[in-house]
Amino acid sequence: MTDLAQIDAYIVAHQQEALAQLARLCAIPSVSAKGQELEPCARQVAEWMRLRGLDVQVLPTDGGPPVVYGEAPADRSDAPTVLFYNHYDVQPAEPLELWESDPFTLTVRDGRAFARGAGDDKGHILSRLLALEAVRAAHGGAYPFHVRFLVEGEEEIGSPHLGAFIERHRERLRADACIWEEGGVDDQDRPFLYCGMRGIAYFELRVRTLARDAHSGVGGSLLPNAAWRLVWALASLKDRHERILLPGHYEDARPPSLRDLQLLDALPDDAAILRAEFGLAEGELLGGRRTTGLEYRRRAVFEPTLTLCGIESGWQGPGAKTVLPATARAKMDFRLVPDQDPERVHRALRAYLDAQGFTDIEVAYLGGQRPARVDPDHPLVHLAAKTGEAVYGQPALITPLVGGSGPMWWFAHFLGMPVVSPGIEYPGLRAHAPNEHIRLQDFERGTRHLAHLLARIGEAVPAR
Amino acid sequence: MTDLAQIDAYIVAHQQEALAQLARLCAIPSVSAKGQELEPCARQVAEWMRLRGLDVQVLPTDGGPPVVYGEAPADRSDAPTVLFYNHYDVQPAEPLELWESDPFTLTVRDGRAFARGAGDDKGHILSRLLALEAVRAAHGGAYPFHVRFLVEGEEEIGSPHLGAFIERHRERLRADACIWEEGGVDDQDRPFLYCGMRGIAYFELRVRTLARDAHSGVGGSLLPNAAWRLVWALASLKDRHERILLPGHYEDARPPSLRDLQLLDALPDDAAILRAEFGLAEGELLGGRRTTGLEYRRRAVFEPTLTLCGIESGWQGPGAKTVLPATARAKMDFRLVPDQDPERVHRALRAYLDAQGFTDIEVAYLGGQRPARVDPDHPLVHLAAKTGEAVYGQPALITPLVGGSGPMWWFAHFLGMPVVSPGIEYPGLRAHAPNEHIRLQDFERGTRHLAHLLARIGEAVPAR
Repeated sequence: MTDLAQIDAYIVAHQQEALAQLARLCAIPSVSAKGQELEPCARQVAEWMRLRGLDVQVLPTDGGPPVVYGEAPADRSDAPTVLFYNHYDVQPAEPLELWESDPFTLTVRDGRAFARGAGDDKGHILSRLLALEAVRAAHGGAYPFHVRFLVEGEEEIGSPHLGAFIERHRERLRADACIWEEGGVDDQDRPFLYCGMRGIAYFELRVRTLARDAHSGVGGSLLPNAAWRLVWALASLKDRHERILLPGHYEDARPPSLRDLQLLDALPDDAAILRAEFGLAEGELLGGRRTTGLEYRRRAVFEPTLTLCGIESGWQGPGAKTVLPATARAKMDFRLVPDQDPERVHRALRAYLDAQGFTDIEVAYLGGQRPARVDPDHPLVHLAAKTGEAVYGQPALITPLVGGSGPMWWFAHFLGMPVVSPGIEYPGLRAHAPNEHIRLQDFERGTRHLAHLLARIGEAVPAR
Repeated sequence: MTDLAQIDAYIVAHQQEALAQLARLCAIPSVSAKGQELEPCARQVAEWMRLRGLDVQVLPTDGGPPVVYGEAPADRSDAPTVLFYNHYDVQPAEPLELWESDPFTLTVRDGRAFARGAGDDKGHILSRLLALEAVRAAHGGAYPFHVRFLVEGEEEIGSPHLGAFIERHRERLRADACIWEEGGVDDQDRPFLYCGMRGIAYFELRVRTLARDAHSGVGGSLLPNAAWRLVWALASLKDRHERILLPGHYEDARPPSLRDLQLLDALPDDAAILRAEFGLAEGELLGGRRTTGLEYRRRAVFEPTLTLCGIESGWQGPGAKTVLPATARAKMDFRLVPDQDPERVHRALRAYLDAQGFTDIEVAYLGGQRPARVDPDHPLVHLAAKTGEAVYGQPALITPLVGGSGPMWWFAHFLGMPVVSPGIEYPGLRAHAPNEHIRLQDFERGTRHLAHLLARIGEAVPAR
């Protein structure tokens, strides 16, 4: 049995070093949406992994940025294998003017470290590596489990090449447990574990009706307007009651089980927190006054959604310009619940637009993920809850599904292993938004939680 | 009787001088949509007017850029009064990269003069002034009619302060005829006269649903999405068959009279030209295959329209960003036929959005104009047609209404005078677009046409 106090001491003693390495990583603006600085970031991740004794390769993908893959053997061959999944890419930092410090310079103030990627997901990469170090040091300089560490570079745009990579490297990625790329605490510092993610299907709709823009006085009643075509097509996809109108879209949406609802019911009610964060009065959440308590939590994750993420056409400057636009574009994501399938949504979207007379609307599929579920009563989840409670002094919260998406299906279903999510986040993190940051205390506690879980992982997953 | 040959010789001899003055005017980027360089441009116009012996004042408006107003007496007090209406502001030059020469440097090549405002409307200002000079020179150095010359600075954004100005200066603006700010020839060099303009009501719709943008994974089924709200509101305003859904909107739309239809029927068929310009195949104009001949010309001007001019919300950069937008905006214009009223449309729009549940959509009224009609059989129109035929060697085309909008109502209805539109344009002018230009031959012939009309104006409008 590894000494947990020794692990804790190690983490405290080496945290500054890890944060300095995090700063180096955050200085590389690896924005996958722009294809920016991905290879340099992959090489830096590889360097930080090698420092922890991993045998690292920067492996190509078919058309995407490389995957950083590292492995290290356990001190005995029949030990279990643990696979870490993380990503080195980040969301765009725009709008830049809303950042209080440079998004690509890790800046510590008031016990918090600000940068794009500080939490999502570069901070987690360093937290995982520091936890590995600590466990190894406390275990006599060797790992008590086989390490597999996979860091991809396209998570923020839907991991379009990860699936093919995992299919190709299936054998070496076999493991008994997967440590997910994120996780953390709720607003009252309770460790928060989740056992599934929604899927996603992201599309760009494009339309061109004319060779060039026209004058609205000449063309208004004669020339097809790209902006109107797009508006009508979008309005045909979802009604004002948030009902998605693709035929059969809800047929694949498995309702929550009683166990799911029990888990949701045991969670705290954070509807008021969400409302406060976005400046909404009571009853202003979608669904109105009934969106509270269990219904709020059910709706938050078990409802398929269709979000318009962006739309643009014509004149967007100041004042009035009487132009009739030739082109228009919209971006949107469907969030999918088990057992919806992004490829099926893609086909249904094309067929529906055609049937509605919108053959002129081009559909570009920018990426998708299948939804994933993990058994919330798996021993690994129980162990993560138990170790979390010990570190944080409060019982862990276990949720069956979160609203976000990621490539969890490949790990939980395709590779078939349990997945757990200890981590360094808190609800004020501002992932994907200006002033993304982590709290330093969360970095320490999240790393300790993970290290304790790793030190005891043999209790939850069997040796080979 | 003034000698028309002497007028023609004067215009030919002084055209280069007028074009040099036009170049000075075009060098001032007086973009009203941006509130840019309007006063300097007004002062330059005043200088060019003073050179023609006008007594000029740069008069303030209530909150807008100044109006340049000049007047000169006739050689006898009972002569008729002619009011010239023009504007010194221009449309934005964007997109700049599509200009083949700098938009604010008048550049002559292949017999054409390129610049923003070369045609719309600075070229017309110089054409009017050159015609006045020529008539005065041929009339022994005095004007055969009282001159009133009004040049405003907000036509391109809907002349929001012109009405109040005209109300305040009603007495001094009284006249017997109005020379409109534009006009020209069709694609076969036939002089084109119009007897009315559509009205317009320009709006910006704005919505904010959240204090800030959200992550679509968290908020998709909980947080109201500004882009969706806007799309649904827009889709409620016009259906896919181009029918505007504001209650009563078509009740005020006076159908064309038989005389209107006779005039339209006598016009050449330019549906194929419009289709070619915008890359549309047969049957791709709105209304399909029946949009040709008389129906094309009726539809082009006698149908009320609602054009989406611009829309923007959320992420518009490359790739996928999973953002749920807090704000969204759209710009749109209604083109109004007689007897629709922009103020009434404004009230109807607000009431309709409220009734549809879109109280969250802010409606900003960016400007409007009432539709205007002039009797196509007024002697002034007939004289303009006759003098046009003499200059161009082809019969004039007379149309009851054009698709564009302007403040003609204030002249034709409020001040109550006939309005005619001789001018220097041709269909390839590219007003409001990159590479706006005039043909030099049109500048000469349009100026001669106007000067001939002015020299004989006593035949069409009575002396006092």
